[in-house]
Amino acid sequence: MREHGTKRIFVHEVAPRDGLQIEPRFVPTEDKVRFVNALSKSGVAKIEVTSFTSPTAIPALSDAEAVMRTIIRAPGVEYAALAPNVRGAERALRCAVDELNVVMSASETHNFTNLRMTCDKSLGQIAQVLKVIDRQIPVNVSISTAFGCPFEGVVPESRVLELIARVVDSGADRVALCDTTGVANPLQVEQVFGAVGSRWPEVRFTAHFHNTRGMGLANVLRALDVGVTRFDASVGGLGGCPFAPGASGNIATEDLVHMLHLMGYETGVSLEQLLECAGTLPPLLGHDVPSHVLKAGPSTRRYPVPGAAAEKRDA
Amino acid sequence: MREHGTKRIFVHEVAPRDGLQIEPRFVPTEDKVRFVNALSKSGVAKIEVTSFTSPTAIPALSDAEAVMRTIIRAPGVEYAALAPNVRGAERALRCAVDELNVVMSASETHNFTNLRMTCDKSLGQIAQVLKVIDRQIPVNVSISTAFGCPFEGVVPESRVLELIARVVDSGADRVALCDTTGVANPLQVEQVFGAVGSRWPEVRFTAHFHNTRGMGLANVLRALDVGVTRFDASVGGLGGCPFAPGASGNIATEDLVHMLHLMGYETGVSLEQLLECAGTLPPLLGHDVPSHVLKAGPSTRRYPVPGAAAEKRDA
Repeated sequence: MREHGTKRIFVHEVAPRDGLQIEPRFVPTEDKVRFVNALSKSGVAKIEVTSFTSPTAIPALSDAEAVMRTIIRAPGVEYAALAPNVRGAERALRCAVDELNVVMSASETHNFTNLRMTCDKSLGQIAQVLKVIDRQIPVNVSISTAFGCPFEGVVPESRVLELIARVVDSGADRVALCDTTGVANPLQVEQVFGAVGSRWPEVRFTAHFHNTRGMGLANVLRALDVGVTRFDASVGGLGGCPFAPGASGNIATEDLVHMLHLMGYETGVSLEQLLECAGTLPPLLGHDVPSHVLKAGPSTRRYPVPGAAAEKRDA
Repeated sequence: MREHGTKRIFVHEVAPRDGLQIEPRFVPTEDKVRFVNALSKSGVAKIEVTSFTSPTAIPALSDAEAVMRTIIRAPGVEYAALAPNVRGAERALRCAVDELNVVMSASETHNFTNLRMTCDKSLGQIAQVLKVIDRQIPVNVSISTAFGCPFEGVVPESRVLELIARVVDSGADRVALCDTTGVANPLQVEQVFGAVGSRWPEVRFTAHFHNTRGMGLANVLRALDVGVTRFDASVGGLGGCPFAPGASGNIATEDLVHMLHLMGYETGVSLEQLLECAGTLPPLLGHDVPSHVLKAGPSTRRYPVPGAAAEKRDA
């Protein structure tokens, strides 16, 4: 299995959009720009910078144009943004985003709660966006709740395949399957990514996992096993689903990169620089972040030998 | 790979010993007994109840005899205890433990810091314990820092194999490889457990992982892939290494069982009962615990659909 994977993995940083969108404290535009610029230096392959949605829908990201136009773009990094519809896509285009991210849910209830429309209507809008963009820039379709829905429960694999078929028919060639509330397990990940990878070898699939139930990196491992090479992650482990309180957060980019490097994968990312970014978050946001490696340090960390050794039995 | 694994997994609960030993607050004997009794009802295969060490070394477990003699033993559950030496082993035997756990580290510095003796001396003591016990009850040898040392860094696989060869020569047929400070990665787990499983097919190997750097369940997954069927875990995610502050904790038993069940493994454990146990810990210990599933609930958890849906873009 592991044989089919290349050793090059592409890390997509989503904290500036997926993380900041649910923060109760508005992050000032200049801090957002500083944050994205620092992330650019880490060497991630893509950064989802912001969302071109209505400012009343997501007040936290009401400064999309200003952020997108002020950041310093590093060569080799793709700067993506989310757009909910054609109007948002046009705003994003005017800001010269490198990739557009459009989103819908695999489950009707989540789609309606999140986007106030049926899945069919979302599919129509995505087709429209793809038509308007007309391959000027790549469009990625993120399918939320692809591994389960916080309202409906199980989402059958056949449903996910059906939606992918629809968006591929509309011209999409980049698809992210998102475990929005962290319900996916490694067996399911193997089945779903195994199935889509062999059915649509021409589509760039991304895995978007949350660590809500501790399975984030186990799911990454199984996705690697079936050949996935692109992963969304959020520095500090920011993020979560606004409709599933307590069900926080995306896998932390530093935890992902730390594991990948230990396993011999190349990411092009500087773990040190990522940890520096992660370290700026608690003071910026006013709360602790769920990252593991930020707290514990990398596996190579050495501790001083205690002087007068307490006699403890430690296993 | 996954083909060689049986679908039956044995869950070893270590919180009463490995977790409570580093708690600053002394847990009263009757609360420990209640805790172990509740764990017994969850259906875990083994519980490490306490440690027969000197009360000055580990004051938190100074009531080893009282706890061991007062708990109600459930049929089908093994009640184990740690013993550092022959004297401890004899105390444990008098309390009729079902299995003795002896411990040493793979790295000299950790062994000396933890046990105040060289690895050679520890190997000698373990041989002595095995001789005195003389197969009256099974003895498990836990090798700490088997995947890396917080003082020395890398621990070569050859060192771990050498130590296993020595304890197997002394008569050990149960060995746990312990990632004491959570530095192991899935590739290393595959290599080490792959190697020991094929070299000593007659030995019962247990994997003991910490989630310090978020890789706990990813390591479990890879251990399953190479045929490991026995896992130590700590309800609530209690535990950690006293010499690596901040480097907390064992994988949470409920997170382990939750993932295993979703993947179709049988454990004989009631997740509901485990979560009930985990829920008693924060009030008992006076602090939050790092368990994921205790906080988020199982993957099957459903949230109420919000009434007036906020228009959020959620991926």
